[in-house]
Amino acid sequence: MEQAKIRLFVEDDLAEGAVLNLAAQAHYLTNVMRLQAGALVALFNGRDGEWTARLVEAGKRRVTAECLGQAVGQGMPPDLWLLFAPIKKARTDFIVEKATEMGARRIQPVFTRFTNSERVRPDKLRAHCIEAAEQCGGVYVPELLAPTPLDKLLDTWPADRRLMFCDETADGMDAMGALTAAGGDKWAIIIGPEGGFATEEAERLRALSQSVPVSLGPRILRADTAAVAAMALWQVACGDWRV
Amino acid sequence: MEQAKIRLFVEDDLAEGAVLNLAAQAHYLTNVMRLQAGALVALFNGRDGEWTARLVEAGKRRVTAECLGQAVGQGMPPDLWLLFAPIKKARTDFIVEKATEMGARRIQPVFTRFTNSERVRPDKLRAHCIEAAEQCGGVYVPELLAPTPLDKLLDTWPADRRLMFCDETADGMDAMGALTAAGGDKWAIIIGPEGGFATEEAERLRALSQSVPVSLGPRILRADTAAVAAMALWQVACGDWRV
Repeated sequence: MEQAKIRLFVEDDLAEGAVLNLAAQAHYLTNVMRLQAGALVALFNGRDGEWTARLVEAGKRRVTAECLGQAVGQGMPPDLWLLFAPIKKARTDFIVEKATEMGARRIQPVFTRFTNSERVRPDKLRAHCIEAAEQCGGVYVPELLAPTPLDKLLDTWPADRRLMFCDETADGMDAMGALTAAGGDKWAIIIGPEGGFATEEAERLRALSQSVPVSLGPRILRADTAAVAAMALWQVACGDWRV
Repeated sequence: MEQAKIRLFVEDDLAEGAVLNLAAQAHYLTNVMRLQAGALVALFNGRDGEWTARLVEAGKRRVTAECLGQAVGQGMPPDLWLLFAPIKKARTDFIVEKATEMGARRIQPVFTRFTNSERVRPDKLRAHCIEAAEQCGGVYVPELLAPTPLDKLLDTWPADRRLMFCDETADGMDAMGALTAAGGDKWAIIIGPEGGFATEEAERLRALSQSVPVSLGPRILRADTAAVAAMALWQVACGDWRV
């Protein structure tokens, strides 16, 4: 089958013969990309894999598409959560985009003692996740949770979920060894705020029995850099980059 | 000794008793940070390590500082070059910032067949490197080379420098195993443009005897994400994050 060049996330169910209303994407499809009736698009909704669909109508206001067949099954990324303390807007957007590309299943903003920004717009962040999923060829959009205080989250931390904790005092630790040795298939990575964790927070994180402290080298990384670097190490050691 | 909170890159030599003219940073030091004479700052120039200095004058126009003592010796990051095809401005700035934090020694923009942006402002990029080095606590600012066509660069590629090539067709390869097995202490990482390498370029890269193809997982990564992820894997396998 001819290959669709444009990938779109939709909320509707996808199944053979289903006709979807793409009104929300009409401007993009007809004005920006200049698609006409008959053009193929790839659609995914995070549940039904990726479907090849053909535009039936491609008007200024009304765009519809019919699902022809499933091109990719619904794979799931590994069971990895990314916890991060919201930072300046551009970098928060960036973290959310990167978490999607790097294959996080859930994104959880956390408020720490030194979190500067308390303004998180979940709807905007979700739009970044969707755009990143459309671009990266994934069929999954991470679940984006409402921000929660770190203390509250740790009070009920699941016993079977390991927590990779990027510990600035863990220099010289064997990151890959620690991740591989910890094992398990439920994980989270926590990235601290710009000013680092407060002493009590770092102590609580270290004391948690599910915690796996890992060093990210001798230089201080910004939170957004640390998020990508930590997810890369985790994916290679425990996730779907592993051979 | 009391600890300086502000780190500044300077061009001058640093040595005990040296008095530096910080005119270029006067606005930042006196208006933004409101430092006064007697305040400590940390200075580095990429050659003499990090020095603690005391502000002697802290006027609106004239700021001078006297070097008191070396706080950190001049360490060098591993001999890693980052080659990347310039992309949209914000993401190019980001790659340069991340390369500094992640400990690249040299940054080399390359023009490939599908490189979209040919506008690279080396002076602006260097400013991003400097700012990142000030933030990340490093004492080294990567050398930033003028953009060069990829073909020309490969024509004279050094025999003893390995090239980590993020190959989208290498899915299922053992990245860490390939990096560790290749060994050597001179390396480069090459990150392709948004549209990927042209077929001939990918073939030439694969055919190069110094080339080490590596997979970055099942999702397509944007160039800036790929740069951070690749540097993280390399640092853990071969660089200064290795135990």
